[in-house]
Amino acid sequence: MFAIVDEKIDVGALIEGARRPDCGAVSTFVGTTRVDEAGDNSVEYLEYEAYRPMADRKLEEIGAEIEERWDVGHVAIVHRVGRVDPGEASVAIVVASPRRGPAFEASRYAIERIKEIVPIWKREVWSDGYVWVGSQVGTRPG
Amino acid sequence: MFAIVDEKIDVGALIEGARRPDCGAVSTFVGTTRVDEAGDNSVEYLEYEAYRPMADRKLEEIGAEIEERWDVGHVAIVHRVGRVDPGEASVAIVVASPRRGPAFEASRYAIERIKEIVPIWKREVWSDGYVWVGSQVGTRPG
Repeated sequence: MFAIVDEKIDVGALIEGARRPDCGAVSTFVGTTRVDEAGDNSVEYLEYEAYRPMADRKLEEIGAEIEERWDVGHVAIVHRVGRVDPGEASVAIVVASPRRGPAFEASRYAIERIKEIVPIWKREVWSDGYVWVGSQVGTRPG
Repeated sequence: MFAIVDEKIDVGALIEGARRPDCGAVSTFVGTTRVDEAGDNSVEYLEYEAYRPMADRKLEEIGAEIEERWDVGHVAIVHRVGRVDPGEASVAIVVASPRRGPAFEASRYAIERIKEIVPIWKREVWSDGYVWVGSQVGTRPG
């Protein structure tokens, strides 16, 4: 399952959906909004924008790369767009595999690749303004 | 939170409980019952036994080791004992950290250390008999 969504990500349901009888390991990564601070100011929330449908296709591409490289039974990547409040998940990656090594490696690979190739941009909204951070790719679109 | 439990592990709730405003990454590992097959026979379920309260203390020790080595905001390790059916979780590890590197490394470390130092034993119950497997430590107690 590869999806870009507007609403809260239900990580528990994604993990439930990854369970398979031929897999003994499920590795999950969740990226959440961190409240950075600078002087008297702090991050109030994050806002993500995706360039679609390219972003959807790139998530699927990462899934295909993982299935080529590792023995995995299930891969799910869900990225949220729009406003994401502190502690809420912006991205969830769930990989089930027969053994734990590939599950750990593939979930780590997925988050690194998302930041490399998926056209999603992040805006940090601070108490005193905002800043676009090139977390997912280098620059803003257009 | 470090616990040995008899009932189903609620992984979603553990992840919810790990969210902190100063952390941007949550890495989770779930070990589940895998249905291995050999000829006409297959694993029907797993059964875990713990030597307590030593096992509880060892889980806490692993948590302390992680907090010494990495910048983490939250560590939870829950291991189930008794019968664990296919696809169900026997162990869940949740690590929240400001950044993703330490979260991945610490959750991997936790499962390796559980298998090294926590006195928990696993019995594979096959359709044609059972076998104790030294997954958690080398030998059965006494």
